[in-house]
Amino acid sequence: MNTNKKPIIATMIGDPCGIGPEVIAKAWATGEVHEYSTPVLIGSAQVMERAVGFSDLKLPVRKISKLDEITDSADVIDILDSGKLDINDVTLGEDNAACGKVSADWLDEADKLALSGEVAGTIMGPISSVAMKMAGVEGKVFNIKPGLSYLFLISGSLRVMHLTDHISLREVCELVSSDLVFNALQTMDSRLKEWGIKSPRIGVSGLNPHAYGEEEKNEIIPGISRAKESGINVEGPVAPDTIFRQCIDDKYDAVLAMFHDQGHIAIKTWGFVGNCALMVGPPYLHMSVAHGTAYDIVGKGIASHEMILTAMKMTGNLAAGNGFL
Amino acid sequence: MNTNKKPIIATMIGDPCGIGPEVIAKAWATGEVHEYSTPVLIGSAQVMERAVGFSDLKLPVRKISKLDEITDSADVIDILDSGKLDINDVTLGEDNAACGKVSADWLDEADKLALSGEVAGTIMGPISSVAMKMAGVEGKVFNIKPGLSYLFLISGSLRVMHLTDHISLREVCELVSSDLVFNALQTMDSRLKEWGIKSPRIGVSGLNPHAYGEEEKNEIIPGISRAKESGINVEGPVAPDTIFRQCIDDKYDAVLAMFHDQGHIAIKTWGFVGNCALMVGPPYLHMSVAHGTAYDIVGKGIASHEMILTAMKMTGNLAAGNGFL
Repeated sequence: MNTNKKPIIATMIGDPCGIGPEVIAKAWATGEVHEYSTPVLIGSAQVMERAVGFSDLKLPVRKISKLDEITDSADVIDILDSGKLDINDVTLGEDNAACGKVSADWLDEADKLALSGEVAGTIMGPISSVAMKMAGVEGKVFNIKPGLSYLFLISGSLRVMHLTDHISLREVCELVSSDLVFNALQTMDSRLKEWGIKSPRIGVSGLNPHAYGEEEKNEIIPGISRAKESGINVEGPVAPDTIFRQCIDDKYDAVLAMFHDQGHIAIKTWGFVGNCALMVGPPYLHMSVAHGTAYDIVGKGIASHEMILTAMKMTGNLAAGNGFL
Repeated sequence: MNTNKKPIIATMIGDPCGIGPEVIAKAWATGEVHEYSTPVLIGSAQVMERAVGFSDLKLPVRKISKLDEITDSADVIDILDSGKLDINDVTLGEDNAACGKVSADWLDEADKLALSGEVAGTIMGPISSVAMKMAGVEGKVFNIKPGLSYLFLISGSLRVMHLTDHISLREVCELVSSDLVFNALQTMDSRLKEWGIKSPRIGVSGLNPHAYGEEEKNEIIPGISRAKESGINVEGPVAPDTIFRQCIDDKYDAVLAMFHDQGHIAIKTWGFVGNCALMVGPPYLHMSVAHGTAYDIVGKGIASHEMILTAMKMTGNLAAGNGFL
């Protein structure tokens, strides 16, 4: 069932002046990442060397230029360093245009490796949208477009794909359509299968209280019916206030939420530690973490590596088709 | 600070053929209810005698006709029984019009006692809306009207008052106004003070993702500003996906949610046991429980009394002005 070949997963180290590099170093040092994948970093070796020191990890950092040079060992950090950043040009714990610029460059490098199939998935360490705006490259961060891409949050047994993201509730009500629901369910079902869930059980949340309203009748129910006819194992619309607990309790493998806050309220209120976020839309696994650069605690060695560790292990496991962790 | 006089709280036993009577008997038998209030039941003594037997409690049930006959002891169940139900006319675990009818009558009796000030609060045991519809008395259940009444859910440190209830998201977007927010905050602040929270800290949820949208700008923020000017300690609008966790973590005493599912998703996903629900609107405390009649387990003595026990203790404590439990 499980193949012995581990997928290569590229992790972009995040903003060089945030906590990304140090939490990635701590996650790497656990050795757990290598159980699920062959990891490689994309970023600055100099930054990673400094980050390793913040937690006294004594891990050597090895600059490589091609993937076939990967050591595949938890005892040495392999990093693809295109040499675009001089650590002396930027200030730790602050937004710098230079950091924004290299963040975009590193995201591009990761994207190219994934699109060419050289790596099976990418992880975006915590970037700074402010720094990226300062460099005028904020458009380089993956952007969610209804019907084309979806945010898929994972928090233990609670897994939620969002039909819509950062749009107003009024727009959500206008946008929800039978087509959108059907297409999302097709995408969701096929991705879940690729990730290793053989017979995915999907629950669809309603839009209105108790899943009772015009949008349910005219759009969501017809969309679900089409999905069922096409062979997808899907239930709904289920009352939005019960479906997330049902997913936690393993009634579903994942829930399709109608809008941003349905899923986000559930995930953040449940309070499970180790959330991570997949972007469903790119033709490869693209993961990110829920936390930011946390400038206030940079360099102190106290930032938690829980989320990035989950992200790194999960991406490897999903890329190998071995399901959720 | 605490007065020695316990408030009298009337609990309507719920549908006589549901689990209400037996969970109330179990809650009564714990003795904990009497620490917070002088409880009295409203319903059928015959039904309560049978319910006591379901759990082998050996608690005598004493029919009284006036409140000054209350024993105020956990060793005997005092019940106001207007004699409107013959237990032989109805079938346990089934919807009966006769049960619907007496449920409405008992709710009326409780309401009258509270309006006259004879009891400080009422609790509605789990009723059956089907049975009440069969009897044509469904209108007797307290109904929430935007701007006039609000559902206030309590689940440990997570406490949420809902600006709107069972209306569509489209209607929510239309209804949310500066006046509605301001009035709700005034009501919320004064109730919290009555219940014993001396300086209530209130958080207001936004409507849209990250609390960023037209309704926030044009209605919610102006409503909050007016509340602040009137001396209310209120913050917001806060991102809907973070405010409920902040309330759990004691940043706020309670949250004002914009719509039904914001609060309900948070409460039900968090999974704290012992939820209860206050109706804010009537001039007295009116509590209910989150569960229903659970006909499938009636009479087996296995139904959990956790929620009704919380409701009975909480109503007493709030009526005494001693705050949340």
